Amino acid sequence: MLTATALASLHALFGIRLSTAAAVLAEHGQSESLVTAGLPDAVVFPATTVEVAALARLATAHRFALIGWGAGTSLEGHALAVEGGVTVDFRNMTAVLEVRPEDRLVRVQPGISREALNRELRTTGLMFPVDPGANASIGGMAATRASGTTAVRYGTMRDNVRALEVVLADGRVIRTGTGAPKSSAGYDLTALLVGSEGTLGLITELTLQLYGQPEAMMTAVAAFSAVGQAVDCVMATMQMGLVPARIEFLDADTVAACNAFSGLALPHAPQLLVEFHGHPEGVAEDARRFREIAEGFGARGLQLAERPEDRTRLWAARHAAYHAILASRPGARAVVTDVCVPISRLAEAIEETRADIAASDIPGPILGHVGDGNFHAILMVRPEDAIEVATARMLAARMANRALRLGGTITGEHGVGFGKLGHMAAEHGEAWQVMGALKQALDPLGLMNPGKLIPGQGRASLA
Amino acid sequence: MLTATALASLHALFGIRLSTAAAVLAEHGQSESLVTAGLPDAVVFPATTVEVAALARLATAHRFALIGWGAGTSLEGHALAVEGGVTVDFRNMTAVLEVRPEDRLVRVQPGISREALNRELRTTGLMFPVDPGANASIGGMAATRASGTTAVRYGTMRDNVRALEVVLADGRVIRTGTGAPKSSAGYDLTALLVGSEGTLGLITELTLQLYGQPEAMMTAVAAFSAVGQAVDCVMATMQMGLVPARIEFLDADTVAACNAFSGLALPHAPQLLVEFHGHPEGVAEDARRFREIAEGFGARGLQLAERPEDRTRLWAARHAAYHAILASRPGARAVVTDVCVPISRLAEAIEETRADIAASDIPGPILGHVGDGNFHAILMVRPEDAIEVATARMLAARMANRALRLGGTITGEHGVGFGKLGHMAAEHGEAWQVMGALKQALDPLGLMNPGKLIPGQGRASLA
Repeated sequence: MLTATALASLHALFGIRLSTAAAVLAEHGQSESLVTAGLPDAVVFPATTVEVAALARLATAHRFALIGWGAGTSLEGHALAVEGGVTVDFRNMTAVLEVRPEDRLVRVQPGISREALNRELRTTGLMFPVDPGANASIGGMAATRASGTTAVRYGTMRDNVRALEVVLADGRVIRTGTGAPKSSAGYDLTALLVGSEGTLGLITELTLQLYGQPEAMMTAVAAFSAVGQAVDCVMATMQMGLVPARIEFLDADTVAACNAFSGLALPHAPQLLVEFHGHPEGVAEDARRFREIAEGFGARGLQLAERPEDRTRLWAARHAAYHAILASRPGARAVVTDVCVPISRLAEAIEETRADIAASDIPGPILGHVGDGNFHAILMVRPEDAIEVATARMLAARMANRALRLGGTITGEHGVGFGKLGHMAAEHGEAWQVMGALKQALDPLGLMNPGKLIPGQGRASLA
Repeated sequence: MLTATALASLHALFGIRLSTAAAVLAEHGQSESLVTAGLPDAVVFPATTVEVAALARLATAHRFALIGWGAGTSLEGHALAVEGGVTVDFRNMTAVLEVRPEDRLVRVQPGISREALNRELRTTGLMFPVDPGANASIGGMAATRASGTTAVRYGTMRDNVRALEVVLADGRVIRTGTGAPKSSAGYDLTALLVGSEGTLGLITELTLQLYGQPEAMMTAVAAFSAVGQAVDCVMATMQMGLVPARIEFLDADTVAACNAFSGLALPHAPQLLVEFHGHPEGVAEDARRFREIAEGFGARGLQLAERPEDRTRLWAARHAAYHAILASRPGARAVVTDVCVPISRLAEAIEETRADIAASDIPGPILGHVGDGNFHAILMVRPEDAIEVATARMLAARMANRALRLGGTITGEHGVGFGKLGHMAAEHGEAWQVMGALKQALDPLGLMNPGKLIPGQGRASLA
């Protein structure tokens, strides 16, 4: 789909930072999940906004697609080329452009990873808390509206991206947002672009909200006899006005996998893993109150971890849960599901999902960010077994439908890509057509990440 | 501009809930500020979403404008008809449709006022904290992306509107958002519509985030010898990780007006009025730490108010500040300005603004939500004195330009309406054209609140 003329223009712009090598194309045709698509026709590695804008003008002139690429950790095929085109890999745009400690802001390029950003911030006393697990790029996290374990306290990318620089399909460069903490000056373009998955433009710069590194942290882990009691404990905790920094649910199978993989000895039962941030007095009282609430719901053996090494061990195990679960079935790959429901329906959603998976032939431990009503089943399949793969896809589709029936959403944090396209009409109804109209207004040629998120433009051939 | 046929259709739809009476038109041609425009041709009082949708279809068929009206408390002319049309007054749509305590959500119609909503919530232990001062309608607050004293802790309408039902220009009814606390399922239409000032559609239902009524509250008031020290104290407070529920600045003139109006005896000096919410142990420690920080910046006579009657007296005085200031110059009306800057530039912004006002012939006390970098000057003019009015407008324009120069925004919470239209290009550059393209996509005939927010469509004659 890339003409010789287009390729020559790209070569003139990018020189050796343009590649059509098979290995490079293959690298950008892969995904961490089972979602697959074709290969891009070329990959470019821009170094500046000016180059990205010139690239968009070329794309418009020659009618080729542009697909943004951060760290390649998305789970629904967001960064895959469904109809060829040019993948825009931001690995050369990873600078921290400005740290503003007094405003608790940082301005970065999109390719920087969240771990690299936090390493750069360490000496400032500040942190960027959004933590999706994977060491994703900040630009990709914004494009996907990612969140993770800390959203219950610090919010998602929706809440923590304060300003953007974006290259539109026609090569115009716009800036959204300001350095002020809030604004009522017109449409919230920042919020529209966060979560737009590269379908409206390519993010070339982000201003992020930072937070002080907490003076004190306390982690608690508690076992419950049933999922419902753990979830009721979460609801009561939130209703009492406690604001944990993290409140994570692990079902018994997830706990078993973590015990085996990370050398823990937690009871084989549903667990809550909770963390409080603040000053020592506040955190101690938070933990005392949480213990009281949890024990009211039958929690057993609640342990508090205040020493950094103990906290780190628990959270490292939580972060390794995905790999721990995969290791529990050698040779398996995962269909990672992601739904989010009102917290009042969470126990029901998890129990029904568990029963559905238990009635199937594949294992699927469940874990989640339950303070947000968000959970995942890690459905493990032998990738060569078509029946297992189909079963996992059916279970995932049923989870999405269940989330909608319970008043929730088909994706809490992983996004749509093309993996969840088939559920968008059911979630949004006529509002999905409105998304299509907005896309049409900003990208009338359909060049920006085609085949993703919006109603079919008759171009993409979807998996 | 309303044809006889259109009027007959409106009459068939609304019966006695359609008015063209001069007094009713005049009531809807007024504004709390000095911003003025023409009158609508008619006012309707819908009772249901179905009626609003039918109204939009009529507007499309007969090409008349629709202007939403909540409580009429907006300050930049948002709800005024600049070219006639039909004002849609939501006073008959004030129901609390559903309270969901476990999810801390409430679903309401747009016409309910924030005070009425909180009265209805009182027995539930929950509250809706967004507090713009005026007893605005919830629909209007969402349309304006309002905030107020509590945004520093609880966020603005951007953060607290979770789902919407909206009638589009062509009569389609869409629902955005779900009951889940977060979602990555496509464009964030809720965020696009919050702050769109009725230019993209009419909000007919809102789902709001609620919070537990705090177990303990503590208010502190502290006097500083200079604006800069008060602002530095705010920055240090935020950087130390303290999260006040409110942190308000009052300059010495505002304090004097409040003393006279509300019978306080605060020192004639810049003051911070701070409140902490939480559990008793956390709040006590917050207050202790705040005292330490404030005294480090030279605060004198810091008083703590824990008893409800003492706290109420202070906050009632703060809420009456606007009227207290107006009372200090009998016969005056106010040009109320509203800018927001990065907190690192706040002292500079306030000092320059004070100097600018001091060099003019009109009084303009300054107060603001300084935890957000947001402040207001209440520029008092004799409305019949054209020179004073022009002076106030010049000072306001200079404030907006100053905010932009310091990296901030022309409006922190009052919105654009048509009062701030002239500054939009300076703030947004090319992004303002993008707003125009989005408007064009959803309202191609320009029927929804014409003359507001977006680049000129060649229809409105602006003040």
